[in-house]
Amino acid sequence: MSHLGARITHIGPGRVHIVLPARPEVTQQHGYFHAGATSAIADSAGGYAACTLFPAHTDVLTVEYKINLLAPAVGEFVEAVGTVLRSGRTLTVCQLEVFGVQDGRRERVAAGQQTLIRVDGSGQ
Amino acid sequence: MSHLGARITHIGPGRVHIVLPARPEVTQQHGYFHAGATSAIADSAGGYAACTLFPAHTDVLTVEYKINLLAPAVGEFVEAVGTVLRSGRTLTVCQLEVFGVQDGRRERVAAGQQTLIRVDGSGQ
Amino acid sequence: MSHLGARITHIGPGRVHIVLPARPEVTQQHGYFHAGATSAIADSAGGYAACTLFPAHTDVLTVEYKINLLAPAVGEFVEAVGTVLRSGRTLTVCQLEVFGVQDGRRERVAAGQQTLIRVDGSGQ
Amino acid sequence: MSHLGARITHIGPGRVHIVLPARPEVTQQHGYFHAGATSAIADSAGGYAACTLFPAHTDVLTVEYKINLLAPAVGEFVEAVGTVLRSGRTLTVCQLEVFGVQDGRRERVAAGQQTLIRVDGSGQ
Repeated sequence: MSHLGARITHIGPGRVHIVLPARPEVTQQHGYFHAGATSAIADSAGGYAACTLFPAHTDVLTVEYKINLLAPAVGEFVEAVGTVLRSGRTLTVCQLEVFGVQDGRRERVAAGQQTLIRVDGSGQ
Repeated sequence: MSHLGARITHIGPGRVHIVLPARPEVTQQHGYFHAGATSAIADSAGGYAACTLFPAHTDVLTVEYKINLLAPAVGEFVEAVGTVLRSGRTLTVCQLEVFGVQDGRRERVAAGQQTLIRVDGSGQ
Repeated sequence: MSHLGARITHIGPGRVHIVLPARPEVTQQHGYFHAGATSAIADSAGGYAACTLFPAHTDVLTVEYKINLLAPAVGEFVEAVGTVLRSGRTLTVCQLEVFGVQDGRRERVAAGQQTLIRVDGSGQ
Repeated sequence: MSHLGARITHIGPGRVHIVLPARPEVTQQHGYFHAGATSAIADSAGGYAACTLFPAHTDVLTVEYKINLLAPAVGEFVEAVGTVLRSGRTLTVCQLEVFGVQDGRRERVAAGQQTLIRVDGSGQ
């Protein structure tokens, strides 16, 4: 994620925000963020959100996610919000939201849902 | 939906609730609601929610949905909540939630997301 | 599933077919199969397909599924095919397909993907 | 997509292959391809596959996709295959597969499904 230039801007129990500023590497010719970049920070936000509910050094892997691209992702930056809907012994399910922010105006540009599996060094 | 014994309990702009009482036809041997019944009322709640934002007699079809079954769906009834996330000229995207309600206690048992297409008698 | 009138018509390693004949309980006014019924047999086909790769008495639960409703589900019967894409220690991922069959003509009416978790009487 | 270093290696009616060679920008510390890179080429492969069935200069937008990450994406390169399942007037649905290729051995590392909308310069 850091390879995209993204950074975590909020960590709370079961919720993490990630911000990705507009840069040529993550935007298209029209200034829209690539769907791949938008999806990647959404996926990361969910993964980090899941980890907030586990002991330190617990790791998670994304099993699957589904994302709807609702509107062109434009703005000075996009912000992904991952929120835990259910945290179980093995699996965690997160809600994923991505907002484009321009001139202080925040518009939802993507929404999704993700399943993660907890891995404790013992493999999947 | 009515064939399952479900009924709409709330209609607001972009949001619809549907309740399905426990009955032998929609529950399994352990008293859990069938995933199929849970999914069906979630799908219906999203479809009705989409229609609240359109002129009368506009119809919608489900293009696709994704649903996570988070916990066994137990209770006197399950309640599905469909909420419009984005309503466009052609497509509408809804958030789907299902809660099991027992002794007044409400637990989330499923969460999903759905894409619908508007059809105006002119075909897809 | 049997409550819908469906029956398994093929079981092979990692693949199961389920057929659901048209009946008033599972079809709408225009003779189309309810999306709920279509989805339910697809979900079941995937679950049974997963079990073919496990020891007897192993059970699976659906974690989540996603389904695209591609065309109106019409026909004398619909046939769901569940095929295992990946079977792991904990999770299994299946491809789901549903065909409408009329006068010997078979048309794909739905396609999806499903994640299942293995449960061995030890809970989730 | 080209910003990732990916290239189209096959175009046929309703099917497109995209190859992404391993490079530091798209792989993690362990040499695994980033899920974001894997998903991005899968999404692109589906989009191009959809376009093969339309007149030149027709464009498509991804409405949504769902992807299961089945195994660590390792190899000299990953190959995404997008296959059209249904092409309609407005919407196209594609199957997405991603394989990791190492020493000539090809392993499925991701599988998904995608919905696209046709845009003809007339907006969504």
